[in-house]
Amino acid sequence: MEKKTLLTDCPDSKGLIAQITNICQKHQLNIVKNNEFVDHKHSRFFMRTEIEGYFNDQTLLADLDFSLPKGSSRSLISSKKKRIVILVTKEAHCLGDILMKSTYGGIDVEIAAVIGNYDILENLVSKFDIPYHTVSHEGLSREEHEEKVMEAIAPYTPDYVILAKYMRILTPTFVEAYENKLINIHHSFLPAFIGAKPYQQAFDRGVKIIGATAHFVNNDLDEGPIIVQDVAHIDHAYNAEDLAKVGRDVEKSVLSRALLQVLDDKVFVYANRTVVFK
Amino acid sequence: MEKKTLLTDCPDSKGLIAQITNICQKHQLNIVKNNEFVDHKHSRFFMRTEIEGYFNDQTLLADLDFSLPKGSSRSLISSKKKRIVILVTKEAHCLGDILMKSTYGGIDVEIAAVIGNYDILENLVSKFDIPYHTVSHEGLSREEHEEKVMEAIAPYTPDYVILAKYMRILTPTFVEAYENKLINIHHSFLPAFIGAKPYQQAFDRGVKIIGATAHFVNNDLDEGPIIVQDVAHIDHAYNAEDLAKVGRDVEKSVLSRALLQVLDDKVFVYANRTVVFK
Amino acid sequence: MEKKTLLTDCPDSKGLIAQITNICQKHQLNIVKNNEFVDHKHSRFFMRTEIEGYFNDQTLLADLDFSLPKGSSRSLISSKKKRIVILVTKEAHCLGDILMKSTYGGIDVEIAAVIGNYDILENLVSKFDIPYHTVSHEGLSREEHEEKVMEAIAPYTPDYVILAKYMRILTPTFVEAYENKLINIHHSFLPAFIGAKPYQQAFDRGVKIIGATAHFVNNDLDEGPIIVQDVAHIDHAYNAEDLAKVGRDVEKSVLSRALLQVLDDKVFVYANRTVVFK
Amino acid sequence: MEKKTLLTDCPDSKGLIAQITNICQKHQLNIVKNNEFVDHKHSRFFMRTEIEGYFNDQTLLADLDFSLPKGSSRSLISSKKKRIVILVTKEAHCLGDILMKSTYGGIDVEIAAVIGNYDILENLVSKFDIPYHTVSHEGLSREEHEEKVMEAIAPYTPDYVILAKYMRILTPTFVEAYENKLINIHHSFLPAFIGAKPYQQAFDRGVKIIGATAHFVNNDLDEGPIIVQDVAHIDHAYNAEDLAKVGRDVEKSVLSRALLQVLDDKVFVYANRTVVFK
Repeated sequence: MEKKTLLTDCPDSKGLIAQITNICQKHQLNIVKNNEFVDHKHSRFFMRTEIEGYFNDQTLLADLDFSLPKGSSRSLISSKKKRIVILVTKEAHCLGDILMKSTYGGIDVEIAAVIGNYDILENLVSKFDIPYHTVSHEGLSREEHEEKVMEAIAPYTPDYVILAKYMRILTPTFVEAYENKLINIHHSFLPAFIGAKPYQQAFDRGVKIIGATAHFVNNDLDEGPIIVQDVAHIDHAYNAEDLAKVGRDVEKSVLSRALLQVLDDKVFVYANRTVVFK
Repeated sequence: MEKKTLLTDCPDSKGLIAQITNICQKHQLNIVKNNEFVDHKHSRFFMRTEIEGYFNDQTLLADLDFSLPKGSSRSLISSKKKRIVILVTKEAHCLGDILMKSTYGGIDVEIAAVIGNYDILENLVSKFDIPYHTVSHEGLSREEHEEKVMEAIAPYTPDYVILAKYMRILTPTFVEAYENKLINIHHSFLPAFIGAKPYQQAFDRGVKIIGATAHFVNNDLDEGPIIVQDVAHIDHAYNAEDLAKVGRDVEKSVLSRALLQVLDDKVFVYANRTVVFK
Repeated sequence: MEKKTLLTDCPDSKGLIAQITNICQKHQLNIVKNNEFVDHKHSRFFMRTEIEGYFNDQTLLADLDFSLPKGSSRSLISSKKKRIVILVTKEAHCLGDILMKSTYGGIDVEIAAVIGNYDILENLVSKFDIPYHTVSHEGLSREEHEEKVMEAIAPYTPDYVILAKYMRILTPTFVEAYENKLINIHHSFLPAFIGAKPYQQAFDRGVKIIGATAHFVNNDLDEGPIIVQDVAHIDHAYNAEDLAKVGRDVEKSVLSRALLQVLDDKVFVYANRTVVFK
Repeated sequence: MEKKTLLTDCPDSKGLIAQITNICQKHQLNIVKNNEFVDHKHSRFFMRTEIEGYFNDQTLLADLDFSLPKGSSRSLISSKKKRIVILVTKEAHCLGDILMKSTYGGIDVEIAAVIGNYDILENLVSKFDIPYHTVSHEGLSREEHEEKVMEAIAPYTPDYVILAKYMRILTPTFVEAYENKLINIHHSFLPAFIGAKPYQQAFDRGVKIIGATAHFVNNDLDEGPIIVQDVAHIDHAYNAEDLAKVGRDVEKSVLSRALLQVLDDKVFVYANRTVVFK
């Protein structure tokens, strides 16, 4: 007996839950857990179904395709461990949290490789017996460097690419190659600070809260459908360095939580928003 | 066309979602929103279904009763505004928040009456043109006083009775008369402090967090299935009075949020726990 | 014996704490509570001192003026209750929370009057026996309307003017007249949404957090030194109306907390930031 | 020029701030940062003073001893990096976070050694080139085992001993040997759950919040002055394992934050409470 997850994402119409669950029953599959959501503004239906039983994927999907309305997308995902590649620059905190949790419990994932545009974090990654590739950007154009990074990623065929404080701007070529598979962590504040030294800007603005946002990347580095956000409270006595220290803890926590949701196939993307099932 | 909410609470078995949604379809009812949850530990299935259409309640419920396993309970709830009675003692904060929100937006409910064992809050309640009954406990045994309170409540036939800082211990007679209809707000801390002057105890213990718990009452005043909990961060500079001030804000917020969930029929009770759908 | 609060705000230099506390001792005044903070970036010293004893204000301030460096500002504030005027438009939630707390405990303040550009909230305010002035903006230029509002405020000589969801843009004339005395509550998000229908924009952006900011107004309505910020977590299932409901609770809580700090003379403003002592 | 921190903890009396700051001035020392707090209930004064200058420790302390009231305690702490020993059992999350932060930034501390009653975490610790001692409790009485642990700790003369999910009960001998130097992280809930399988108990009780408490150990493992507390929100859909996963993240965050405060000499202990300066 196997366990799989069926994701359905389609135009809303009457009777969808009955149609999908009837097909599962016809195939003698047992629904262990089910979530659905209708985005009434966009008239879109989302359903995530954890199923147990003996699967004939082909006929199950054929039955679904026959039944679901035009414009539907569905996928049947096996419960095998997912594979990620992590991109980094110099900061260790997000990377370290994922390494610790994948090794000692907390995130069930295979880290296929870590790629950095500096070699600073090679030492950390090597402690965990994971390949590290330094792909320096020095002397290269953005396009040339990115091509080399993509070449380094490709052999690992990752399910997701995680930007764990990767401080390079990506081109549309890269983003399109990993559509809905590219997850970034962004320091973000109330209000958002753009440009260099965000924590200095936060200090200057005198904010009382700092935050972080994990999101899919769909165009530039700091936009795209939001998966998880969180904040920490601070006060006037925090200088820019203190803010950075607190901010890093929020960033690593937010990225890890986003990763957990995505790896469990709990996140749908539609209309630049996410549906994140519990 | 009407809108109703169907609540199903039954032993878990294969095909429940399909069965229920098929019955809805057979009755040409449209499912606007659906949530379900399986408590695998207790093998119990919970489903909340918002339905639109032309209802024949009797045949719909008969079809469900025929289809659902033994030991099921189901109810079909119309979308009319619910009616509550609020019990108070001396403190205004929780009562005031519900009065404000029911009058100026935020909670869609009819406050049928407020009953207090003191007359202190009569003036506040009268501002909102709602009947206030003082039922003094002085010179009465617990049982005698409670009987008078129940007599005062009865004519209003409330859907729920809200204990908004009602500082009297209830007898099992009262609790059983309003099973799963009695909601209390309890100041509660890490760890919980029992007895008089809880905020002084919290100060003495030097806690860094204070909290509140809204729950159904099923035996004594401070137990029963939890609906909402929240906390606020405090530090050493807060004296017992400061703690009480912060605590009251948490209490009123937690009680209002619990009320919102309950009035929307989003809360199931089972095995001394709640399932609270979003 | 009286209780007063001494606020000192001056260029940082050696021995300031000793100088100020020695002067207090010379005057046989007892320091009940003391907080100080040095903004090292701006080399600015802030000290708040709660003092008990028999005051000769004139000689005490003269001694301080003699001792403190050039560019200092100091004030000695008596502990009498402060007076505020509240400006509103149509929304009741922030106003209601302040009315409730000033009447039933939580904020120790005299609400001298409420002024609205509509008469919608007159009924609420009259419940609490507080004068309400409707100053309609219809048919008036921004300057004409604002002049009438300022005329309505003036006789009450308020210590602070609170913008409790006052949806009018203020001119520099108004802002300058109430420098560091004008407090606004601003719905604000990650990232901030500008313009009409902010909660619809928040929904469209798919944020997982909404927040609010209480701040002094120093130029336009949504800028100025931040006093308190807070957020609430939301998810994809919240529509724009749900967001507004949650947002209003955050707004009222943040504004009330800011008011508490300001009324206790715990907030310094410098370099577009605040120092908020606990 | 050096930087030191002066901690003063004494019975409250008039003019303490002036006395202490005058002594600093007399010694031509510059106060960089100062915090004080009076616990009015216990009539106790606490002051933390960051000082810069050329120190003559002996005469400075002698001047303070001459000036401060009877029953005072004061210490002058140099800014050198502190040394800790960490005690563990099987769980890696708290240990891992401290290892990562001490190596890659976030906590400025020397981890002298890690001691476990199992060898499970030896592999993790060895990645960071830190000595690991396995001191098995098997076949030993509580007292015998503890004696061996204390022998293992002693040569490292740590400033603090951190119980990072060390699951052994300590005897009063151990606790007294490290009075106010022993920091524990405790999973704690609303209400607190005692005994085995706390997360299963939390599930059974249906709590909506789980938390963690970092505290000094002064008698048994789960009591003592609280340093930091925090919580995470959960709902009915979290099973006991999910709760443990969330709980571990709260635990590691709370312990790291407590450690930061303690290592910066920001924490006073008095009357089983802490004063934690910002």
